[in-house]
Amino acid sequence: MTALVAIDWGSTNCRAFRLGPGGEILEKRANAMGILAVKNANFSGALMDLARDWIDVPVAPPVLMAGMIGSAQGWIEAPYLPIPAGADDIAGHLVIAPDPRREINVVPGLRGSGAAGPDVMRGEETQIVGTGITDGVLCLPGTHSKWAVVEGGRIVRFLTFMTGEVFSLLRRNSILGRLMVDAPHDAPAYARGLVRSQSAGGILHQLFTVRTAGLLEGLSREAAPSFLSGLLIGHEIAAVKDILKPKSATVVGAGALAQNYAIAMSVAGIDTAFVPGEDAAARGLFAIALRAGLVR
Amino acid sequence: MTALVAIDWGSTNCRAFRLGPGGEILEKRANAMGILAVKNANFSGALMDLARDWIDVPVAPPVLMAGMIGSAQGWIEAPYLPIPAGADDIAGHLVIAPDPRREINVVPGLRGSGAAGPDVMRGEETQIVGTGITDGVLCLPGTHSKWAVVEGGRIVRFLTFMTGEVFSLLRRNSILGRLMVDAPHDAPAYARGLVRSQSAGGILHQLFTVRTAGLLEGLSREAAPSFLSGLLIGHEIAAVKDILKPKSATVVGAGALAQNYAIAMSVAGIDTAFVPGEDAAARGLFAIALRAGLVR
Repeated sequence: MTALVAIDWGSTNCRAFRLGPGGEILEKRANAMGILAVKNANFSGALMDLARDWIDVPVAPPVLMAGMIGSAQGWIEAPYLPIPAGADDIAGHLVIAPDPRREINVVPGLRGSGAAGPDVMRGEETQIVGTGITDGVLCLPGTHSKWAVVEGGRIVRFLTFMTGEVFSLLRRNSILGRLMVDAPHDAPAYARGLVRSQSAGGILHQLFTVRTAGLLEGLSREAAPSFLSGLLIGHEIAAVKDILKPKSATVVGAGALAQNYAIAMSVAGIDTAFVPGEDAAARGLFAIALRAGLVR
Repeated sequence: MTALVAIDWGSTNCRAFRLGPGGEILEKRANAMGILAVKNANFSGALMDLARDWIDVPVAPPVLMAGMIGSAQGWIEAPYLPIPAGADDIAGHLVIAPDPRREINVVPGLRGSGAAGPDVMRGEETQIVGTGITDGVLCLPGTHSKWAVVEGGRIVRFLTFMTGEVFSLLRRNSILGRLMVDAPHDAPAYARGLVRSQSAGGILHQLFTVRTAGLLEGLSREAAPSFLSGLLIGHEIAAVKDILKPKSATVVGAGALAQNYAIAMSVAGIDTAFVPGEDAAARGLFAIALRAGLVR
């Protein structure tokens, strides 16, 4: 029996989960129909393509979605909820998508004050709920990595860093990228990048040393991506340390990127734990659906 | 009468000057055959395409080149000269390109210690000589902007910032670029960016506020590029102020970018002057050629 169809719908892909009465994942699917790929705003059609057999059934299960599907470019805009906010607050501000045939609920994003101006998240609030962590500092590495402070089950502060996107731009499109080849992660080069990030001149100056380290310090084309990664992640961790001053933090995820964040945090004197990131969105959507009364 | 054929040959274009006995520009030409566009390393052919009628004449004038043509990817590698270095030092380390029919001299680049590791320049040393400034701090805005400290006619320190390239990447290839449209420079938005650069969180965090300022603070798509520019240039100037502590500096150039640098410097309390940047390479090449005895 399907208790909830949970959809994590981002810019570049769509992941669907069929959940049982205890929140267990009965089935999951994904495709590359992120909101940017959906033509003519036919989100209803795209959802049916992925999960019609779960949804169009005699006793239709509730459907709850999170992510960029709730942005101005998505199916319906679910206004950002101000922090502090937890699962109860989020559950109280669901928005219903304009589908004439079904009730499809959408989770709002969150807004707060970063260290330099307003900050927002959309999708990560659901993953954070899904970790089950009610107190602590969480790190969600990614294209736009998020750091969140959770107290009593509510997100009370968060910060976004464009580290992953800046890495990709420099790797793929910059003059530095021409000095690199794809290769397995190089741990010593990554550590060199972390150390380099602590020197003077700021990122815009230090980035040029990716080039000069290749010319004059023997950094290989294979090692250069890891060096660049260390340089950028080192800056992110330094800023977090400066602003949030966490003694410990939990990295959401378990892959190579999560490990690299943990190394950088360790170098910065921040104790690190891990919590699984995979399917955190599904667990979060189930928790929010319970509180919203969509699931009993 | 041609006293010198001076070539400023960079990655993306080639500029040629025919200079008279006093260094005056008699004629100039340019094309888009930067060293990256030259096929099969046929630099000799590319030079002839641009300036054969100046060079293949009964009394052949000396030819002197500067820029990336002297890099490992260019015609011949002219090893980086360590700083301190001035026109005399540079003139003493010219390298001859492997052209069997003509003597073609190439200016070496310079290397020094930046604030975070080794630093190099190639081409800018010639422009700096060409400004005629023998004492002071010079700023050369560009894709990779350079700051140089000149004492007694020698470059004693310099720093590179990848500000221009990072701006282009973010403008053209990032998610932030999708929130922007091309428009005339917006001075108030640029100033907002300068101010934003002074807040906490570092560049990687502050960049995300380009997005949130559009979502929540009324920053228009037209104004966003100027805001981003202010954010990045603000970081560059802050780093320079921190490291070089200049009371005043001279911006090489006179266009919009030079003006914007001057505004950022003024906000940071650095007195600013301008020196023309156009044709500074030609003046520098002439000064170096004089000292090398290529021109009498």
